[in-house]
Amino acid sequence: MKQSRRIYQDNTPLQDAIEKWLVIVKPLPLKEGEFIPVHQSAGRITAGAVQAVISSPFFHSSAMDGYAVHFHETFGATETHPLRLKLNEQAIPVNTGEPMPHGFNAVIMVEDVSIEGSSIEITESVTPYQHVRTVGEDIVRTELILPENQKIRPVDIGAILAGGHTGVSVRKKPIITLIPTGNEVVEPGTPLRRGNIIDFNSYMTGALINQWGGESRREGVVSDDKELLKESILKSLKDSDLVVVIAGSSAGTKDFTPNAIGEIGRIIVHGINIKPGKPVLLGMVEDKPVIGLPGYPVSAYITFELFAKPLIYHLLGIVPEMPEILKARLSRPVASSLGQEEFLRVKVGKVGDKYIATPSGRGAGALMTLQRADGIVRIPAMSEGLAQKSEVEVTLLKTRDEIENTIVCIGSHDNTLDILANLLKRRFHSYSLSSAHVGSMGGIMAIKKMEAHIAGTHLLDESTGEYNVPFIKRLLSDIPILLVNLVYRQQGLIVREGNPKGIREIEDLTREGVVFINRQRGSGTRLLTDKCLKDRGIPPQKIEGYDREEYTHMGVASAVATGVADAGMGILSAALALGQEFIPVARERYDLIIRGEYIETPKIQSLLHILTSDSEFRDLVTTLGGYDVSDMGKIIYTTVGPPPN
Amino acid sequence: MKQSRRIYQDNTPLQDAIEKWLVIVKPLPLKEGEFIPVHQSAGRITAGAVQAVISSPFFHSSAMDGYAVHFHETFGATETHPLRLKLNEQAIPVNTGEPMPHGFNAVIMVEDVSIEGSSIEITESVTPYQHVRTVGEDIVRTELILPENQKIRPVDIGAILAGGHTGVSVRKKPIITLIPTGNEVVEPGTPLRRGNIIDFNSYMTGALINQWGGESRREGVVSDDKELLKESILKSLKDSDLVVVIAGSSAGTKDFTPNAIGEIGRIIVHGINIKPGKPVLLGMVEDKPVIGLPGYPVSAYITFELFAKPLIYHLLGIVPEMPEILKARLSRPVASSLGQEEFLRVKVGKVGDKYIATPSGRGAGALMTLQRADGIVRIPAMSEGLAQKSEVEVTLLKTRDEIENTIVCIGSHDNTLDILANLLKRRFHSYSLSSAHVGSMGGIMAIKKMEAHIAGTHLLDESTGEYNVPFIKRLLSDIPILLVNLVYRQQGLIVREGNPKGIREIEDLTREGVVFINRQRGSGTRLLTDKCLKDRGIPPQKIEGYDREEYTHMGVASAVATGVADAGMGILSAALALGQEFIPVARERYDLIIRGEYIETPKIQSLLHILTSDSEFRDLVTTLGGYDVSDMGKIIYTTVGPPPN
Repeated sequence: MKQSRRIYQDNTPLQDAIEKWLVIVKPLPLKEGEFIPVHQSAGRITAGAVQAVISSPFFHSSAMDGYAVHFHETFGATETHPLRLKLNEQAIPVNTGEPMPHGFNAVIMVEDVSIEGSSIEITESVTPYQHVRTVGEDIVRTELILPENQKIRPVDIGAILAGGHTGVSVRKKPIITLIPTGNEVVEPGTPLRRGNIIDFNSYMTGALINQWGGESRREGVVSDDKELLKESILKSLKDSDLVVVIAGSSAGTKDFTPNAIGEIGRIIVHGINIKPGKPVLLGMVEDKPVIGLPGYPVSAYITFELFAKPLIYHLLGIVPEMPEILKARLSRPVASSLGQEEFLRVKVGKVGDKYIATPSGRGAGALMTLQRADGIVRIPAMSEGLAQKSEVEVTLLKTRDEIENTIVCIGSHDNTLDILANLLKRRFHSYSLSSAHVGSMGGIMAIKKMEAHIAGTHLLDESTGEYNVPFIKRLLSDIPILLVNLVYRQQGLIVREGNPKGIREIEDLTREGVVFINRQRGSGTRLLTDKCLKDRGIPPQKIEGYDREEYTHMGVASAVATGVADAGMGILSAALALGQEFIPVARERYDLIIRGEYIETPKIQSLLHILTSDSEFRDLVTTLGGYDVSDMGKIIYTTVGPPPN
Repeated sequence: MKQSRRIYQDNTPLQDAIEKWLVIVKPLPLKEGEFIPVHQSAGRITAGAVQAVISSPFFHSSAMDGYAVHFHETFGATETHPLRLKLNEQAIPVNTGEPMPHGFNAVIMVEDVSIEGSSIEITESVTPYQHVRTVGEDIVRTELILPENQKIRPVDIGAILAGGHTGVSVRKKPIITLIPTGNEVVEPGTPLRRGNIIDFNSYMTGALINQWGGESRREGVVSDDKELLKESILKSLKDSDLVVVIAGSSAGTKDFTPNAIGEIGRIIVHGINIKPGKPVLLGMVEDKPVIGLPGYPVSAYITFELFAKPLIYHLLGIVPEMPEILKARLSRPVASSLGQEEFLRVKVGKVGDKYIATPSGRGAGALMTLQRADGIVRIPAMSEGLAQKSEVEVTLLKTRDEIENTIVCIGSHDNTLDILANLLKRRFHSYSLSSAHVGSMGGIMAIKKMEAHIAGTHLLDESTGEYNVPFIKRLLSDIPILLVNLVYRQQGLIVREGNPKGIREIEDLTREGVVFINRQRGSGTRLLTDKCLKDRGIPPQKIEGYDREEYTHMGVASAVATGVADAGMGILSAALALGQEFIPVARERYDLIIRGEYIETPKIQSLLHILTSDSEFRDLVTTLGGYDVSDMGKIIYTTVGPPPN
């Protein structure tokens, strides 16, 4: 008998869930107005029409520096028969913006006048109200300055003040109360015990609420107790427009939220046919909307945007801005479950004149894959996946500028890339370095397919003993590239602090009870491991854990540090970063391949500037340990014309 | 001898001024960091790299609901030879997210297990760490979460908290102190006297500062006293990164700012070759930047964005986002001064699949033209202007969405259009009505040239006595249109409260001492005036003020109310709005022409919905006075197929 402890009440298609939700949201009354000082109203939404209560200007004023005159006293003046007007009697000096003297109805510019004793001489007659700003020229009293439901911009603040107001009625902010739940959930800063989960979801969603124009409030963490949860929901509802219960985890046996909401209100939808985000719950308690958010952060983020955002905007009387959509080509195929709509995180790079979208991690718990993503591609429920090179629509999480100013680095992982990314941003503000770690071979293929601007590589050609160049000659023969050195680095076996298994050399990996952690196929480090085994005649199947792969040096070091494995091949700096021990195996050259078309772009030039001339970068890299920076920035090989400056 | 009281020290080309400014700005050190709670850091800029101090997850946990097992105890299980594991000994129930029991190293999903008494039965062996989220799967300790100089988003708040931080170092906000100056300048809310200028500039620019990430401070208004101004600048500089002196006006004789700055510091640029914005001043006092802003609000806004924004962004270590640029065609030619770069305000409408840019008012003091503008077109200094239909690049002041959701109404002015605009936004949130008042004939031509979706018109055909339809048949014969009634309205002579000139009928306009204010050529009201004069055999030259034109009924009513004229032709509601008297002349039909292509669009359907079914709109219009709404929304004439729903 198969057993299932967690059952989602349904598996509602997203569109149906949205429609059911809108049936609840749409009839909710908009937030009432509150009267606030105009100068504090930027970004708020008008709760009623704003009409001018005074005209602007509210008095006739001179539009020029010159002399106020009576226009009928200027009749007959010509070049041949100039006319004189007595100063301070018939012609009063006025500056731009000054009120017109009473009864005067035109202005002659100072440039068109000569002073003759106590008179001015003019050579042209003037028309009524020439060079006079008349009352209401800008705003006429009663005129509409802003309609209801309009977001107030800085220029609107100027106009509202000019229209005679000091206060303005804006919609009160919708109040959204967040209730984090779960015995295991702790406040950030709490000393952590195994099993604890830091409550970052409520702060992340709180920041979203504020960004959308709402006011976020947060209750203390409610432990796994249905009655306490019901109490907290009911209490929060009193002064909230929406209550959001954030599951501490999606743990089945402890998932009290549906029952709690079901007992005090009505569940509208529980379980939506999307990935990630499936376990979301939508309900109504005491005629107010309640959302049960999944605990996995990516699920929480995506479903919160799908359901809370339209509600907040509705209450404010505005419509969300359309997100920026960008058309891109997928760099690799993506399989997706038929019948489930997927929100796929992607990295986007502009390489050449095309945008290339590369799928990143898909786990609902992998917050960093969302944090690093440039956008989201929605794969429809009726699709089994997307082919390589399909054109996809990417909903951007960053601006197009940011994407265009990003150097896409795909290839081997090295810890110095983080430092390089930080220094690039520190020195050049607008440029970013985005690294995806797919191994040296993957980097070369990314350069070939124009998916990357640069690639990190450390591939040893066994026959020549030479790094990288033989592979480039073979695989990138027809592609213009520049190869510059980043570092020489120390590779070796990372073993746990204190080396409890007594590992001394490669041969020890075959010992009973020694578990190895490998790197992925195509990585330079995997090739190094394989070469070491081959040199020693050790068949891979003799090594326990050979099939378990990590994608970065830090992943290997972390696996060793936490007991997943006893040893793994990696760089010294990774071992040092996590306080592990290290048995040197090889010194290798790690280079960057730069695709020729981009060498002269400002972003690549900025990067090269750091490699060739930034002593702080060299110092920081050296401090990591195991690096030799003596050839940093040196051109190793090139198939483009003159080297760059 | 010609005299000139105001001399700009120079007339620097914009690009030179920007370069001179950057020479000052670029070497300024970035703002130092301040340590703030992570959850308050949204929108702030990192002052240093943020690296994870803990891994996330920081313990091995189950990735599924199921049973934790030792993987080596599962070897040999198959469908035909199932294997039993003792519950709570060899197989420990775990929920998703829970820590792995010590020593256990794999999870079997609950779905893949049958319970048999106190054991579970499995039919497959498992691999090490199957369905286990290992330490650092999301973030490995030491990993870079955010580089320096990065704006923090809600998702970053999640990542920083997950990485073990409770605080984060962000750049302090640059402090910009605004000093409004001028004897005539008063605080908003002060009882106004003739000559006063409400200080809205400092609040408008203050809101811009806050929007850009700075902190605005505001000094009290400094009167026209050079010593006081110097004192205020020196005091403000102490804790400011930039001091901005806002001229109360650009009045020549009272323009103390250049002298004040010159005496305590250095003037870098005074006078820039742009329109509007020419009199801006850039300087340095005690090694800090100082800007003297022109007093006219449009000049102030444009120059503030040109010079203050890059400074604030520099101090924060970021680069301003590129504004959205839209390509549009100019609906009419624009002349521009050779040798001066102009920032032309334009309205933009999407009509068909083209964007049409229509220049709006160009006065530096016309704040509403900026507030209502959709974007800015820059006309280079070397251009004498732009031809009709030229393709121009519009730097948007609104989003593309807002522009696409705007109904462009070009034509005759009527006060009910303001009410309609407000109700449209109230009822439908996303739709706006933008009106440009160019007269009935201008509206018909705008429909013909596809520059407008709808046009207001009230043209009387003298030969038939019929409104609008004869003109449409003649001028829009080949264009699909729908003509619906908006209102019938009362036209007449607007005369000053109390009617001091004793005007009773059209003939009185010819009297000595009676000054008339006219409407522009092409407006229906101008035609009405001309018809009245012709019927009575009065030649226009017998009417003083016949040549002075206003563009709206409110402009006419305001001219009468403020003594610019004694009488003008206009609608009753305009006279009532400003408390003036009214002598009825004609009742006329005011219709809306809707271009056929747009009838079925949601925004036009929304508008029609209000016309046909909104009793509040009818009530509000009736309250204005002089309107008959009995045919509102009725189809008067159509050249398209079936009428809309």
